[in-house]
Amino acid sequence: MPVLGRDVTVPLVTGGEVTYAALDYAASAPALQRVWDDVAAYAPYYGSVHRGAGYLSQLSTDLFENARRTVAEFLGCREDDQLVFTRSTTDSLNLLAAALPADCQVFVFETEHHASLLPWKNARVTYLDAPRTPQQAADTLERALAARDPYGPALVCVTGASNVTGELWPVRELAEVAHAHGARIVLDAAQLAPHHPVSLRDLDVDWVAFSGHKLYAPFGSGVLAGRADWLRAAEPYLAGGGASRRVTRREDGGVDVEWHETAARHEAGSPNVIGAYAIASACKALTEAGFDTLVAREQQLIRTVREGLADVPEVRVLSLFGDDAPRVGVISFVVEGWNSSHFAAALSAEYGIGVRDGLFCAHPLVRTLLGGDPQTQGECGSPEAAPGEKSLNAIRVSFGAGTPDEHVARFVGAVRELVAEGAKWSYRTEDGRCVPAV
Amino acid sequence: MPVLGRDVTVPLVTGGEVTYAALDYAASAPALQRVWDDVAAYAPYYGSVHRGAGYLSQLSTDLFENARRTVAEFLGCREDDQLVFTRSTTDSLNLLAAALPADCQVFVFETEHHASLLPWKNARVTYLDAPRTPQQAADTLERALAARDPYGPALVCVTGASNVTGELWPVRELAEVAHAHGARIVLDAAQLAPHHPVSLRDLDVDWVAFSGHKLYAPFGSGVLAGRADWLRAAEPYLAGGGASRRVTRREDGGVDVEWHETAARHEAGSPNVIGAYAIASACKALTEAGFDTLVAREQQLIRTVREGLADVPEVRVLSLFGDDAPRVGVISFVVEGWNSSHFAAALSAEYGIGVRDGLFCAHPLVRTLLGGDPQTQGECGSPEAAPGEKSLNAIRVSFGAGTPDEHVARFVGAVRELVAEGAKWSYRTEDGRCVPAV
Repeated sequence: MPVLGRDVTVPLVTGGEVTYAALDYAASAPALQRVWDDVAAYAPYYGSVHRGAGYLSQLSTDLFENARRTVAEFLGCREDDQLVFTRSTTDSLNLLAAALPADCQVFVFETEHHASLLPWKNARVTYLDAPRTPQQAADTLERALAARDPYGPALVCVTGASNVTGELWPVRELAEVAHAHGARIVLDAAQLAPHHPVSLRDLDVDWVAFSGHKLYAPFGSGVLAGRADWLRAAEPYLAGGGASRRVTRREDGGVDVEWHETAARHEAGSPNVIGAYAIASACKALTEAGFDTLVAREQQLIRTVREGLADVPEVRVLSLFGDDAPRVGVISFVVEGWNSSHFAAALSAEYGIGVRDGLFCAHPLVRTLLGGDPQTQGECGSPEAAPGEKSLNAIRVSFGAGTPDEHVARFVGAVRELVAEGAKWSYRTEDGRCVPAV
Repeated sequence: MPVLGRDVTVPLVTGGEVTYAALDYAASAPALQRVWDDVAAYAPYYGSVHRGAGYLSQLSTDLFENARRTVAEFLGCREDDQLVFTRSTTDSLNLLAAALPADCQVFVFETEHHASLLPWKNARVTYLDAPRTPQQAADTLERALAARDPYGPALVCVTGASNVTGELWPVRELAEVAHAHGARIVLDAAQLAPHHPVSLRDLDVDWVAFSGHKLYAPFGSGVLAGRADWLRAAEPYLAGGGASRRVTRREDGGVDVEWHETAARHEAGSPNVIGAYAIASACKALTEAGFDTLVAREQQLIRTVREGLADVPEVRVLSLFGDDAPRVGVISFVVEGWNSSHFAAALSAEYGIGVRDGLFCAHPLVRTLLGGDPQTQGECGSPEAAPGEKSLNAIRVSFGAGTPDEHVARFVGAVRELVAEGAKWSYRTEDGRCVPAV
């Protein structure tokens, strides 16, 4: 599946140019060529949606609502589920957090990305310790839900695939546990949906959230899909036009508002039509390519990277569930004797490889996996330790559809070479970035 | 200034095709060709922003932060202002509403768009009656602010140009009144910024909000810019990665979060880089074209439309401030003997002209201007009255950069012809839309 930017070349600090190896898909994936082509074909027909009377307005309105249907189908939505277009997974989970019923208790593992760890600030939150097996995750959740006092409304939030280790979480099992205890469950599928089929129906989860920009559709949209009741009962997420059905001034000078009860209730303001259409286009492209084919191909790339890293004794791959855990193409590691930011900077400047260093917006998890005193470890991504000092953060390599063999081969070769021979250039910290020294 | 879609043709119900006349700019404007070209040129270089170590990640991070600077300059931001990328004006004003200090009282005219009328639901809101002159607006505000009890923190929210009448509001004067009474003021520039220079410094307003999709950059982004103190003191608008500087698990099992104090505080989740870049590109294009030239051209189009409508006695143009008020290219009207949805449908189906009918997400204002019993008037855009019955809503024509003379000439001719000869086709209501009957 060709992606945009596949031919982009970047300069090397050591001279010459190479094609850029984008290996930071877990942060943001390139657009599929197909998604871009669809957006480019539609762009001249863009029009104001909803109440516009013109031909292009009606076309755009239909396109937007068809996008909603396409994505709902992609997610295996049940008939009475609602699908709200948001701006991102973070936004989706903040929306759900704002729709929790009173006294709802939230259960979340400390291993979550901040997007799923932090939005529940107005609820009573129970943070669960990092499990070391999928079974332990289910057991931990079971105990926590059973012990809750009062035994009232509860929501479990869980990731489908870790944005740090790439490991799959036992979503269906956790959903069973949640439902057995009268709780609901929301799946953070930001890292799962680009790599595996995600079905609300099959996984029996109550909601699912994901981002377009990790699903090869980087146009500012995300999705929250699932049960309608809490969403319908909640105050509108944004107050404004589109969410309001009727606004009237009262005799006493106040204003009465009747809000919509459909997804529009939480989509005030003009919708991001291009963003929604891009997500729908990506869903179609992934479905047509077939996840069986995509998964087989990705597992091959994962094997290449993991075997390559295993050959370098200085490399330690971060893992919660061990070597045999099923996973997606997201692998984090540290290199003995290297500051991770320095290592990532050298991969970029000397090999044209784009990875990520830091704590990956999952600070508690990465600190747990790195070990050591969590109070003294670095801020997200800041290369506080000088090159050569003990690493305070990690390096993450991630990939997916559109990643050619050459990128992962180059990555494995680069790791081996850097560890064996050291960096060819020197680096310094500038504005919180590790950059080549000139 | 060429826009995307300028050559798109649409079928007529009466046979044949015409180029589409997009005259619903006030809802959403087409992209400038220049904006599209910039986005298309950047798209292959799209990369994960912020903590990505790769070349394209750093390029994208720089592009995003440069976009922030470009837009801040476009808006005449003061040195210590903050500029937050949001998804729309609605989102921007909801963000500001969430950042109000405790006990802040909000003052807003009933004439506002729902985006600026409704977000203040958690504050004490004083709705001000529709003024009939700019001076009356200032006097009304002055009295309301002076009479507030307690005389505590207050925010005035005012539109720069009405999304119904196109008339300019006396923003600088209202800012003076607000500040004289220790209140702050936010400018809803959604309809103003595409047509006139907007400077926080020159207008002396505390914040300004606008949307990319009305400023020829329909890629899902908007802006809130202005004073940093309330924004810095507020809880993060969205909780998640990017907004959090450091997250730690406490010994008691809880989680501590240190939030950023920059704009990132309110931009959790991966930012919409393409959306922000598109806005910056539009700002540059408008600045380079020069607002003097753009305004002169638009005033010419306004004259053509207003003179054309004035020639048809059955047409009543909606106005708060009268014929001589300065205005942008947004004109609403009703036609005696016509249901507005029917009229708008005929403009589309028989002339290829895209306008809007409805209450324009400004229900109280449009009802005030239409007169009659507000309790019995139609929902936004729903053609409840059958063709021929008294109109419950209005028709709005709007335009801007990229609108050729031919579009407004065709519109004026079509209005004249429809009123004189009636529609050539018959229409019916389907799914809340007025459509050609087959």
